[in-house]
Amino acid sequence: MPYIPVEEHLPGITGLLEYRKDTAKPIRELTQFLLRGPSSLTKTERELIATVVSSGNECTFCTAAHAAAVNLLSGDQSLAEQIRKNHSQAKISNKMKTLLDIAAAVRVSGKAVSPGMIEKAKGEGATDIEIHDTVLIAALFSLYNRYVDGLGTALPRDASYYNTLADRIVNHGYTRLPQGYDHLKNQTH
Amino acid sequence: MPYIPVEEHLPGITGLLEYRKDTAKPIRELTQFLLRGPSSLTKTERELIATVVSSGNECTFCTAAHAAAVNLLSGDQSLAEQIRKNHSQAKISNKMKTLLDIAAAVRVSGKAVSPGMIEKAKGEGATDIEIHDTVLIAALFSLYNRYVDGLGTALPRDASYYNTLADRIVNHGYTRLPQGYDHLKNQTH
Repeated sequence: MPYIPVEEHLPGITGLLEYRKDTAKPIRELTQFLLRGPSSLTKTERELIATVVSSGNECTFCTAAHAAAVNLLSGDQSLAEQIRKNHSQAKISNKMKTLLDIAAAVRVSGKAVSPGMIEKAKGEGATDIEIHDTVLIAALFSLYNRYVDGLGTALPRDASYYNTLADRIVNHGYTRLPQGYDHLKNQTH
Repeated sequence: MPYIPVEEHLPGITGLLEYRKDTAKPIRELTQFLLRGPSSLTKTERELIATVVSSGNECTFCTAAHAAAVNLLSGDQSLAEQIRKNHSQAKISNKMKTLLDIAAAVRVSGKAVSPGMIEKAKGEGATDIEIHDTVLIAALFSLYNRYVDGLGTALPRDASYYNTLADRIVNHGYTRLPQGYDHLKNQTH
């Protein structure tokens, strides 16, 4: 049972974003800029950061949703699981491994990021803006995971929900669905 | 030395919000809604949540800035320090003590919030929206603290900076200063 009265058919973050729409709007926009806006990191790479942080925080809803997005975007059904198990052994670039090291540190604490980690990422070709975005995406999912679990939100009854949600955030992004897409909104329930 | 090239005269969060303005805009808006928008929690009470989380995360910049805001808003120069030491002994309402218990749990993990904590807050008169906002403010400062420390931002050279910043966020809020207020912006450098 969620700690506040969210709509019963909207699990995890989805009910919270409907509960208070004025705060939801900037949260959606920030996510859209960081995960879908122009970037030298691919959409898959940015979803990997979301997955590493959510998995480390054991946030079941966020981990399943972003793992499904990773697999859909990459076309590799095993990628999210590789990342969850051990990102340093996953089939990703060395640069991305160093950025996920930074994201995993941010999850624990901002102070856990060391100059050595930054140096290593730069040595693998990471740019300043990529480092900035990695830290801010990891910080944003530190927010999301706490929001979702701190209010005791429910999980979907059917795990296929995560694939429908992944389809929505991959094909329509994180901002609210425009009018005329209500049929798609209903599919995620 | 910050890990990315932010303007040298802008310490802590201030340089990061100038570094990437498109992500800064929704972060500022979210903060403005939560800490300054209409609420049955006073502005002081909402700044107390920011202070408890930032202090627990040992984020020097955020703690000093929001402690200064607490003291300015409340007119009590000892309030922030009471909260930092032990909020259950501070001169605040019992309801606020239970909300700060929730905020302190969210800081650690969303999963650390227990049904018992929520029940206790409701027993002291906390409403659903107050509980929602407490969790989201605590989650937002979990983001801020990681953003500020994860990029190794600098502290101001002079501690009086925090009073100037507190004056700005108390009297002008968290959104960007409108044109014509540039003189005030310069004062914070």
